[in-house]
Amino acid sequence: MTAAKGRLFGLGVGPGDPELITVKALNRLRAAPVVAYPTSHGRKGQALTIVEGYLRDEQQRLPMVFPVTTEKLPPPFDYETEVRRFYDDSAAAVAAHLDAGRDVAVLCEGDPFFYGSFMYLHDRLARRYETEVVPGVCSILAGAAVLGTPLVYRDQSLSVLSGVMTEEDLRQRLAAADAAAIMKLGTTFAKVRRVVADLGLMDRALYVERATMGAQRVAPLAEVDPKTVPYFSLILIPGPTWPGSGPGSGRGAGPGPAAG
Amino acid sequence: MTAAKGRLFGLGVGPGDPELITVKALNRLRAAPVVAYPTSHGRKGQALTIVEGYLRDEQQRLPMVFPVTTEKLPPPFDYETEVRRFYDDSAAAVAAHLDAGRDVAVLCEGDPFFYGSFMYLHDRLARRYETEVVPGVCSILAGAAVLGTPLVYRDQSLSVLSGVMTEEDLRQRLAAADAAAIMKLGTTFAKVRRVVADLGLMDRALYVERATMGAQRVAPLAEVDPKTVPYFSLILIPGPTWPGSGPGSGRGAGPGPAAG
Repeated sequence: MTAAKGRLFGLGVGPGDPELITVKALNRLRAAPVVAYPTSHGRKGQALTIVEGYLRDEQQRLPMVFPVTTEKLPPPFDYETEVRRFYDDSAAAVAAHLDAGRDVAVLCEGDPFFYGSFMYLHDRLARRYETEVVPGVCSILAGAAVLGTPLVYRDQSLSVLSGVMTEEDLRQRLAAADAAAIMKLGTTFAKVRRVVADLGLMDRALYVERATMGAQRVAPLAEVDPKTVPYFSLILIPGPTWPGSGPGSGRGAGPGPAAG
Repeated sequence: MTAAKGRLFGLGVGPGDPELITVKALNRLRAAPVVAYPTSHGRKGQALTIVEGYLRDEQQRLPMVFPVTTEKLPPPFDYETEVRRFYDDSAAAVAAHLDAGRDVAVLCEGDPFFYGSFMYLHDRLARRYETEVVPGVCSILAGAAVLGTPLVYRDQSLSVLSGVMTEEDLRQRLAAADAAAIMKLGTTFAKVRRVVADLGLMDRALYVERATMGAQRVAPLAEVDPKTVPYFSLILIPGPTWPGSGPGSGRGAGPGPAAG
């Protein structure tokens, strides 16, 4: 007779403000004997920082230390290989606790399935262990709240784009978008801003970094120094306002009584 | 000397499960003397249903009753006019409390700035009253969690589309998308499914209705009867899995240690 295996929880802890965790994620977090979180060498990691005030001393911490900070590595190292090994090793470390019957809560900034590192653990573990994913507030919606700007009206589309895309790809997708959010800025910022400017979208574009975190900053896109742009930053291009409800132009038809 | 005006709160209450409200929204909700919420004639409304267990008797309810259920109205009624009047009237009712010095919490399913009806109140009131927006878990991410499917990997884009779009517009945007979420289905479902099938995406497409609510239903897209599709339903087309992390193909470069 073998003991029951532990359960795997992927917990969205929200964008930064510890109060933007959900009641459900908080309950699951508090009940977990093991708390795993992504981090990098010499750092605490943003996910742990967000929930630290909710943890008890007896909860075991399991840091998953990301091995590389750049995609350009000297031979014989290869970024893809290193990252794959990182997720394999992290999954094995989590699985060891699950096999021993201990539930593991894996912390994810924002939402677990929205560009979250938990996705790679999920793909490796969810078929083998009972798994629950608790969704979270993603950075884009936190950014819109902080900026005080409605993001998508009525039948507008929203395009979530990555700054890592090629300039041409970014240009085509942004030109076709009603509303847009551009993530993964950092070193890609100058390129992204050039595309935004070329398309005549600077007037509608808003910039926010570390939304709802302590060091939050909001600035007009034109005034941002590309050298200062961190990974946790966003450009939002809200959809045009519905006519009659405020300044700006609009389009589309039929706002339901509520959606979200 | 005039009394201080009340503050306006736009609260994302999440996708349906009452535990998927954030700690912050719950705190703001409990502190508000007036709670406004969208509804329609003879109904309680989904937003109120979600938070009802958190309310105290002495908190004043302010229903905002959506006047129309169809975009086709007999003359002399015009949908756009009726909806605009609804938001004007709702804003006035909220403003009356704010002017009397009472804080008002406006409930929004999901997130207030992501297709939420609060946006139309925000556009009418935020310049006149102190306003705070508390972001929420949106239906798309709740759907992904319920379906157990990571939604966007690495540098993939996510296209959030409305079923109300024309078939041609939908076809073009969906063909260009890495990952997609299609909202506002209801009567538009048959058209949307036709486009998904034509583009060869049926194998990747997932369907969920009322995600995290009591009557939640998950089904293969091919098996859904279009006549039964409610407004609170979604089609998700997750991005291809990163190679090495599970089944499926992949593309892109560079997962950071965490994003969300």
